[in-house]
Amino acid sequence: MATTPQSGPERTSAPAPDAVAVDVERVRADIAELAAYCEPDEPGSTRRVFRDAHRSGRVWLAARMAEAGLEVETDGAGNLIGSRKGRGAPGAVVTGSHTDTVRGGGRYDGILGVLGGLEAARALAAAGIGLDHDLQVVDFLGEEPNDWGLSCVGSRGVTGGLTRADLDRTDAQGRTLAQALTDFGRAPETAISGRWPSPHAFVELHIEQGPVLELADRVIGVVTGIVGVHRVLVEFSGRRDHAGTLPMDQRHDAACAAAELILAVESLAQGGGGVGTTGRVEVEPGAMNVVPDRARVWVELRSIDPGWVVERRDAALAAATEAASRRGVGLSVDVLCDEAPTPMDPQVRDAIDAAARAAGIEPLELASGAEHDTRQIARIGRSGMIFVPSLDGRSHCLEEWTDPAHIAAGVRVLAATLVRLDRLPPPTPGAAR
Amino acid sequence: MATTPQSGPERTSAPAPDAVAVDVERVRADIAELAAYCEPDEPGSTRRVFRDAHRSGRVWLAARMAEAGLEVETDGAGNLIGSRKGRGAPGAVVTGSHTDTVRGGGRYDGILGVLGGLEAARALAAAGIGLDHDLQVVDFLGEEPNDWGLSCVGSRGVTGGLTRADLDRTDAQGRTLAQALTDFGRAPETAISGRWPSPHAFVELHIEQGPVLELADRVIGVVTGIVGVHRVLVEFSGRRDHAGTLPMDQRHDAACAAAELILAVESLAQGGGGVGTTGRVEVEPGAMNVVPDRARVWVELRSIDPGWVVERRDAALAAATEAASRRGVGLSVDVLCDEAPTPMDPQVRDAIDAAARAAGIEPLELASGAEHDTRQIARIGRSGMIFVPSLDGRSHCLEEWTDPAHIAAGVRVLAATLVRLDRLPPPTPGAAR
Repeated sequence: MATTPQSGPERTSAPAPDAVAVDVERVRADIAELAAYCEPDEPGSTRRVFRDAHRSGRVWLAARMAEAGLEVETDGAGNLIGSRKGRGAPGAVVTGSHTDTVRGGGRYDGILGVLGGLEAARALAAAGIGLDHDLQVVDFLGEEPNDWGLSCVGSRGVTGGLTRADLDRTDAQGRTLAQALTDFGRAPETAISGRWPSPHAFVELHIEQGPVLELADRVIGVVTGIVGVHRVLVEFSGRRDHAGTLPMDQRHDAACAAAELILAVESLAQGGGGVGTTGRVEVEPGAMNVVPDRARVWVELRSIDPGWVVERRDAALAAATEAASRRGVGLSVDVLCDEAPTPMDPQVRDAIDAAARAAGIEPLELASGAEHDTRQIARIGRSGMIFVPSLDGRSHCLEEWTDPAHIAAGVRVLAATLVRLDRLPPPTPGAAR
Repeated sequence: MATTPQSGPERTSAPAPDAVAVDVERVRADIAELAAYCEPDEPGSTRRVFRDAHRSGRVWLAARMAEAGLEVETDGAGNLIGSRKGRGAPGAVVTGSHTDTVRGGGRYDGILGVLGGLEAARALAAAGIGLDHDLQVVDFLGEEPNDWGLSCVGSRGVTGGLTRADLDRTDAQGRTLAQALTDFGRAPETAISGRWPSPHAFVELHIEQGPVLELADRVIGVVTGIVGVHRVLVEFSGRRDHAGTLPMDQRHDAACAAAELILAVESLAQGGGGVGTTGRVEVEPGAMNVVPDRARVWVELRSIDPGWVVERRDAALAAATEAASRRGVGLSVDVLCDEAPTPMDPQVRDAIDAAARAAGIEPLELASGAEHDTRQIARIGRSGMIFVPSLDGRSHCLEEWTDPAHIAAGVRVLAATLVRLDRLPPPTPGAAR
């Protein structure tokens, strides 16, 4: 697809979008202030959805949005939205991300997209750049996987991706998601029915959470798409025996079968094109002196190429089947997630690319290996993502860090992209996925 | 060592020991009655040490011992002992095992040795065979690994193998072993100080808990020794990364290193001579979407040959070190247990062998891969073990089963062995390990 800079004439003679002055110190101060709203007994800057730190962080954010002259509201699905009226063109230009974190998470994942969006709105206003469309800066509710095994609660909610069955999910204490939403001040009914109108365009600024930009020495990434994710639980059922008395050649050891699968997944995923992980492994009964009869391996495969995922999934299951059969061990397979890749909209990609180049930055195209609210919003409108580097590729940990110069570049490109998106012709009806 | 039948003249002209009539139906009924004392909310015939079922099972057992004319007492370390006076020769002829079980255990492990010992005492009395030495039938306290991570509490207690540090161990609720002993009616002080005098000889009847006798189509096993046990915790420390964003070639995945070790241990232990098991495996943080940074593998090696264990241990650690180094993953190694093999006493082995042959049974010599109270008692006196087959080699599970004909043979050989042990000359002082 085309990624050359837009070189046509601008539609208006207003200040050039690429000249917007971003105050990186203000963004850094905002990030530091929000980081103070964290769970006191948890590591890092933990701010899990629905918890006190998350609530109070949002009160702070709403006030900060209001200070910036934005009109603040929370929609039916619990997304916090700061809006500035445009000149009446239909559909909003929307940017945003999330302020909730994983347990032990960092200060940038999601947060940069919300506070960077706020800064972009402030910078555009300061530069006197008004938009044809309403501008919205969104803090999506609960993007990270939560106690109910669900992610992207808010962005699913406003795009038809949240179901009644999701509301009925319970956490470890038996509390339903519906109850958690109610306690958070949202009516569960509106959380699943309150669809957004199709935006004019959507863009999310986010840290890469991987090492690709850093290794390529690039500052801005234009996301080509969000990878497809296949998750499968493979369970081996062997035979429980006394580890001291059963000779090796008579065992049906589930842990050994699991070990073969772990190494098979790692091996199959080599060579680029995707990643394969066995991040969760359980062995039962888990006693030193017992040959284990049960082992569970959660296999995750991700690629922007659906064919890659299918091929590796089939090969991993073939390896598991072969190992189980050779060992006289039972095998069961439970597909937990099979999400297709989500390509980013070409017009949004072009807008980001052009904004970067106009700022003198050569962007890099790359796929997003991580999940984002953008996957959900792409269902209802043209969407794209801007990545900035993560130091050493780290994320979801205390070491998460992005250089202030990269933050400045990201927010600047975001602001310029918003102006370019504002100037796009209306979307073709029905073009959203 | 010698294993030919004793063919010399018997020391007395009393009834031939090999003619003792054992009532297998009485043993089976006892086994069934004791099995009724089990934990109602646990699987199988669970009777864990110190719990109500264990206590009340012992009350039943004490009554059953008394009915058999045995004098019943509980020693300082909590071992329940039924005694019959002999003709005054020094040191007792002792047999016994344990009535506690693992969670989800069966009806034979340990129990057969206690109830079979009781039946042997009854059968000897019925046959009018008095012994020169006192005869003792013992239910050792807490042979199975317990909530304090300790096994063989009672047999360690009376042989100097229980320490003050052991008493200070706490279970998951913070209760010390000392407190548990106190609640069980034993003074912790006496549990560690109440040493037994050296017995004249000791023999334990036990199910094999493995498939060797069954596969060889043999009914009686003469145990050559109890294997040495080496247990080591190997911990890999990798790097926690986002499983969607970190390319395969940049990972430091602790679970993959662990998988290599699991398969290395299995492979190294092939070919006989010993067994190697990785029964406990833990992976952290255990999330599908996180490259795991921590994995723990508990490696257990057992062999009757100390050289086998050392060789395999070194090879397993070399494999772990190589995998960790290649993967840029940290490695730590914690030796948890390093117990040398315990050879059985040649005179006791000979007595069992002779008793079996006199009963028309060709015994099989084999090592015990499992831990037994006999390991502890062997510290203070000549000791040996009789094995009977386990159906399909199963133990520590509901499927644990020994054929009634094999029970009958085992108890009969036990009774005859006790008589032969009674007739052994006094042990050489200081010969015990």
